[in-house]
Amino acid sequence: MAPPARRGRPRSEDADARILQAAHALLVERGYDRFAIDEVAGRAAVAKTTLYRRWPTKDHLLVALVAKLQDDVEVADTGNIRHDLTVYLTAIATGLDRMRRVGRDAGETDRSAGVVAELVAAAARHPDVGDAVRGMFARRNALPLTLLDHARARGALPAGTSSEVLFDQLAGALYYRLLVTGRPIGADYVEQLVDQVLTGTTATPTHPERT
Amino acid sequence: MAPPARRGRPRSEDADARILQAAHALLVERGYDRFAIDEVAGRAAVAKTTLYRRWPTKDHLLVALVAKLQDDVEVADTGNIRHDLTVYLTAIATGLDRMRRVGRDAGETDRSAGVVAELVAAAARHPDVGDAVRGMFARRNALPLTLLDHARARGALPAGTSSEVLFDQLAGALYYRLLVTGRPIGADYVEQLVDQVLTGTTATPTHPERT
Repeated sequence: MAPPARRGRPRSEDADARILQAAHALLVERGYDRFAIDEVAGRAAVAKTTLYRRWPTKDHLLVALVAKLQDDVEVADTGNIRHDLTVYLTAIATGLDRMRRVGRDAGETDRSAGVVAELVAAAARHPDVGDAVRGMFARRNALPLTLLDHARARGALPAGTSSEVLFDQLAGALYYRLLVTGRPIGADYVEQLVDQVLTGTTATPTHPERT
Repeated sequence: MAPPARRGRPRSEDADARILQAAHALLVERGYDRFAIDEVAGRAAVAKTTLYRRWPTKDHLLVALVAKLQDDVEVADTGNIRHDLTVYLTAIATGLDRMRRVGRDAGETDRSAGVVAELVAAAARHPDVGDAVRGMFARRNALPLTLLDHARARGALPAGTSSEVLFDQLAGALYYRLLVTGRPIGADYVEQLVDQVLTGTTATPTHPERT
């Protein structure tokens, strides 16, 4: 007789989900500086050893949280590249703006990149955190890159377009404004950005340069 | 009789120049973590009080150093936008790559953003450092934005192009790769980026979407 089918997810996945949920709530309350990994264990009702075995530092845990938040953002391929990019990048921009404000009472004039910048610095400081961040983006960005590949294949983007470079132009603009120039990345900006990147592929300069 | 013409720069500018030169040398030797502002005073032969009055923390001093290094990069307007952007962005990419390596023995597989990420985090953590960084970029980026304005005015870019958005696409891609995805930003990439951003303005999709 076959053993009874196992129901539900394995216990360790439940623990991971509880940990990430508790980490998210704590980060929103406290922000980066006052986020303590010990407190996450208590709230998630898991042993500290369980938590540390899985994520040795708060930065490792926060990278896992960001990965989960990214995975929650859908990448829809409706066949209209302008619409799909606008929806996706607006979700990215909204998530970044939310993340930069966590744990702070950020008014309109506050342009700090907050925890986004702290994670960028943690990735630069600790090679294994850096590897985790770069691995997360390589895995995650495969989705919008496939979207762009499809658009090129059906002729909605010029044949020579590199999906990677195009996505750098789009996501890069958002991160650059958030992390470097401090300019806002609201829905208006995202629309203008997608429009210029895509309309740029059809508009013609009146006096193109010989190259 | 008129007083004799004053020769040379005022003493305080000389001190500033000596301080920034000493700061640069120390940063290259030590990297961000082991950079100590007290040591800069000694090397520049200025009183610590002089240094602290001008730049209260090491982050303030490093932002001033980055501003000076940026000002050393020429923005030439030869009338060929592709050439001028390629030269300028290659200089930016080279400077960023040099800066990310300072104070470390970074091999080919090391993708850390180094001190660039530390300064991004300092800007996010301290409002006055953030204001200094954002002010620096607003002032500095006015130069390439003017370059793009001129190109649009002579018809080398489509009339509706926003210089700000276009520069975000270019500089953003470089910072995004350096700080987030860890992908290289060598001369090959810069050329491909400028080419796609500009050729994008002349290439035509075979099946453009109705919008």
